[in-house]
Amino acid sequence: MRHQINRRLLLTGALGSSAALAAACATQSTPELRVVETPAAPPSPLPPNMFGPKPGIALLSRNENPYGPSPRVMPAVAEATGQGAYYADTAYLQAMIAEKHGIAPSQVALSTGSGEALAAVAMAWGAEGTLVVPSLFWETTVLYAEQKGATVRRVPLTEAWDIDLEGMEAAVDDSVSLVHICNPNNPTGKLLDPVALKGFCERVSKKCTVIVDEAYNELTDDPDGNTVMDLVRAGENVIVARTFSKIYGMAGMRIGYMMANEENASKISSYVMSWMGAPQVAAAVAAYNDEGFLAMSKSKVAEARAMVSEAVKAAGLTHLPSETNFIYVKVPDAEALRAAMAEQQVMIRGPYGELTEWSRVSMGKIADVERYCMALKAYFA
Amino acid sequence: MRHQINRRLLLTGALGSSAALAAACATQSTPELRVVETPAAPPSPLPPNMFGPKPGIALLSRNENPYGPSPRVMPAVAEATGQGAYYADTAYLQAMIAEKHGIAPSQVALSTGSGEALAAVAMAWGAEGTLVVPSLFWETTVLYAEQKGATVRRVPLTEAWDIDLEGMEAAVDDSVSLVHICNPNNPTGKLLDPVALKGFCERVSKKCTVIVDEAYNELTDDPDGNTVMDLVRAGENVIVARTFSKIYGMAGMRIGYMMANEENASKISSYVMSWMGAPQVAAAVAAYNDEGFLAMSKSKVAEARAMVSEAVKAAGLTHLPSETNFIYVKVPDAEALRAAMAEQQVMIRGPYGELTEWSRVSMGKIADVERYCMALKAYFA
Repeated sequence: MRHQINRRLLLTGALGSSAALAAACATQSTPELRVVETPAAPPSPLPPNMFGPKPGIALLSRNENPYGPSPRVMPAVAEATGQGAYYADTAYLQAMIAEKHGIAPSQVALSTGSGEALAAVAMAWGAEGTLVVPSLFWETTVLYAEQKGATVRRVPLTEAWDIDLEGMEAAVDDSVSLVHICNPNNPTGKLLDPVALKGFCERVSKKCTVIVDEAYNELTDDPDGNTVMDLVRAGENVIVARTFSKIYGMAGMRIGYMMANEENASKISSYVMSWMGAPQVAAAVAAYNDEGFLAMSKSKVAEARAMVSEAVKAAGLTHLPSETNFIYVKVPDAEALRAAMAEQQVMIRGPYGELTEWSRVSMGKIADVERYCMALKAYFA
Repeated sequence: MRHQINRRLLLTGALGSSAALAAACATQSTPELRVVETPAAPPSPLPPNMFGPKPGIALLSRNENPYGPSPRVMPAVAEATGQGAYYADTAYLQAMIAEKHGIAPSQVALSTGSGEALAAVAMAWGAEGTLVVPSLFWETTVLYAEQKGATVRRVPLTEAWDIDLEGMEAAVDDSVSLVHICNPNNPTGKLLDPVALKGFCERVSKKCTVIVDEAYNELTDDPDGNTVMDLVRAGENVIVARTFSKIYGMAGMRIGYMMANEENASKISSYVMSWMGAPQVAAAVAAYNDEGFLAMSKSKVAEARAMVSEAVKAAGLTHLPSETNFIYVKVPDAEALRAAMAEQQVMIRGPYGELTEWSRVSMGKIADVERYCMALKAYFA
């Protein structure tokens, strides 16, 4: 490490006498100090390409924020890993989250990514009754419970590709234990009308639990206006799910949380199978209130969205409105587009089930989004 | 970072002219370079005492290995965290584990600590039939499933505090889906006779699945002689659980795995709710084959065990034989001893349920074990 730094110093050209410095630093023979032209990176302790996209790949198929993690995360994770022999205490993190949202720490259920807690909710409530869900949303966790015996009632989206709140409310009968909303929705990107959603939650939560997956809330233009946290604060039978995987840029870290009344939070925690690791707890504490990083990420996502939107229009296509880090584009053939993009190492999603004319692209690094825009232009030229 | 390194260089006394170096390095005003007497540690990005025991505490109540993690882990976790924006790929880790144990990667089910996978097993098999377990073992995960409706049949230990293999075999009828063994057992520390266990597994696995939690296997004198991995390699209906929380010294990292035939491994993975984080995958890959660290840890545990054993005998007490990192000591009143030790900041376990005359102490750092030995001597003097 010292040699590495020395090399960097030598390369800056700021040294009065590099030979004097080399001599000064030499507690042992350090011949490599003279090889200033080729500073070597320290050897990786891991095999190449274990994490992140392989070189040359524009990874726009997952809703990750490639600008993460916040720079505050690295030293925090290093400190926690140094203490990795010991079971991690999550009390501080729970208190941080509670303080930010004006609830009690006992109203916060942590999990390894919000996915785990969403699966726990689907299992817990699925054991008690039917789950009412949209026909198109991030359904991985509901599928988990369904494979284990839960009954799931799917309500089609509206013609405008919105979650059909009226239809979902009509689907709630005495057999229903939970209604699952995703807002903004994935893969459509569409936001529900906040007033309509609030009224829906107030009415439906009298009959069963309502969970709103707000994974992309912080990316919307008005996060506070698009959350149902007011109802959680009021103690209603409403659960809000949040994650560090999206705007926080830590999908690979696996940190999520749910906010609910104490009874529901406790029920969720009793179904979560894992407990959080020290690196996760430290990363979350370090990143949670890094407003600078969050603003930068939001700005990059907005910049990428504008680029994609323009490219889509230039190609004679349309897309659904999005305040998230992905855009749902209407195309003639989503699978053909995916395959053509993949040939150029631009990875996007193929069709969701029978929706063969809709193509989801995620906002990655600006240079990668530029490659998507160019490829889209060429494909439709 | 550069300033920090420079301070370290200045402190080595190896410099010909510190003023020349300071001038050479100064791309901007760096007054702190002159304060060579008091090199400050970088400020922690986290609140104090978030991980590990508070200063002054001898933490001997949990079976953690305080010498972990392996030094190989730090740079690996740093690299993975830098790529923490991306979902982690676990294929390499699964292949490493498979290679070491002579099985296929598809026979390895990863989880965030073996606890998660043990809970998944209890849920999956508990949905199909009765779980047969010892009356005393690490039962957290079975309790998880029992709270959610699983039926559990508990078989008392023998008078010698061994898992009663004959009794467990007799408890297996057509309603039983799983038999759960813990070897060495926790909190007793006792190992089963390997020949008897193998015969038991061969016979019982014809009727139902047998899982053996081998969390402490690597700490035993003969790990290869005390595992039932032969039966997993033979494709039998036997599951082996292992963890990075014990000899690997990474309880706070949450990494575990199960090895089984493909059908069972796939079933376990389908019940696990989380997926592994990048820091965990990297830590596991870096540490898995660090034989030097493992040998050091085993040696420290053996040294601590000898100290405790001697102190127990000197106090006129007895303990069960242990090849693990904890010892089960027969005492007049386990709760009274726990409370007295706690007054001196030596933390040990209180009684397990009605077993008020048995006290479990974990092998911590040698200095902390020494405090236990002194406190034990004083208490029984």
